Amino acid sequence: MKEQVLFIILEQYADWEYAFLSCALQGSIQDKTSPYEVKTVSLSKNPIKSIGGFTTIPDYAVEDIPSNYAGIILIGGMSWRTEGAKEVASVVKKAYADGKIVGAICDATVFLGMNQLLNEKKHTSNIHEDLISAAQGNYTGQSNYLNEQAVRDNNLITANGTGYLEFTREVLTALNAYPADYIEDNYQYFKIGFIEFMKNRNR
Amino acid sequence: MKEQVLFIILEQYADWEYAFLSCALQGSIQDKTSPYEVKTVSLSKNPIKSIGGFTTIPDYAVEDIPSNYAGIILIGGMSWRTEGAKEVASVVKKAYADGKIVGAICDATVFLGMNQLLNEKKHTSNIHEDLISAAQGNYTGQSNYLNEQAVRDNNLITANGTGYLEFTREVLTALNAYPADYIEDNYQYFKIGFIEFMKNRNR
Repeated sequence: MKEQVLFIILEQYADWEYAFLSCALQGSIQDKTSPYEVKTVSLSKNPIKSIGGFTTIPDYAVEDIPSNYAGIILIGGMSWRTEGAKEVASVVKKAYADGKIVGAICDATVFLGMNQLLNEKKHTSNIHEDLISAAQGNYTGQSNYLNEQAVRDNNLITANGTGYLEFTREVLTALNAYPADYIEDNYQYFKIGFIEFMKNRNR
Repeated sequence: MKEQVLFIILEQYADWEYAFLSCALQGSIQDKTSPYEVKTVSLSKNPIKSIGGFTTIPDYAVEDIPSNYAGIILIGGMSWRTEGAKEVASVVKKAYADGKIVGAICDATVFLGMNQLLNEKKHTSNIHEDLISAAQGNYTGQSNYLNEQAVRDNNLITANGTGYLEFTREVLTALNAYPADYIEDNYQYFKIGFIEFMKNRNR
């Protein structure tokens, strides 16, 4: 049976930030099928709308998620600083404490900062000053901040909102979802595009 | 009132192929709000599942779409060669004949070829040989084929599945959705990433 990776999506979540990772985890790369399956989680099972205007029915409400999942991925969007988002905090803290894979991209990284989850490990965010300002005293991880598209430190992966491909690569690596060369090929394929990718391959 | 752009999505549609375009059309770029809104269309209003495992409720069934929309965008995926997809053909042919913007990415380009819509204008697809083989006698556009990430010829925009950003740029341009420099900035921002983008800007 496939292990589950949970994608937490809130109202006005960012479509491009989940797409490459969920497709790699739910589908296949080249001839290899993923050992994982993707489940979406929100505050309830009521439909929510993405930034791109797509209406999504979550698979789980946050209070109904199973305990035996492999990783939890927080997809960026416009709702991570709302009261509602606080309902997600205990689940994410428990996943982190249990050593499960925890990924966050874009404003979801600020949510981690507000919940004291960026203080022990190397990490990044969209804009460091904004993270410091939003998380206030809950954030003491200044010396662990790296100005990179995505950062992986053991079970914690963070990225800025344009680091969707680097985020995908680092989460797939942390989950050991595919052989390393497949993960790198998948990254290059989407980064440089099919035409350049095939030129490089045929060189 | 905003003009509608219709995104046609079928079972197992490709999440990454719609994301950047729908977010730019439904949202904003920098300080400018889009003059368009995105509506999703499928064979019925029943929920469908993306390749990435997201469950989507379409806004319209194909027989219920309004007549006064600005463009129709066919998102790639695993169902464009099925019997069901044929229900979409008349709507797409009418949009093309009416001079509306018609966009297709990845295997949706093959659907255009199978419906004789790639014969008059410059276009691309994933793999030319596969397009020729799948569309057989309905495709006579060999001399109009270009091996590029995305191709725009007046109201027709086509792209391979890794040309999601070039496709976004060309459809936004065809729809005149934003000033040209905003569209190019949006492309570069997502192509090279925030960190490189800001370095270039500060040079």
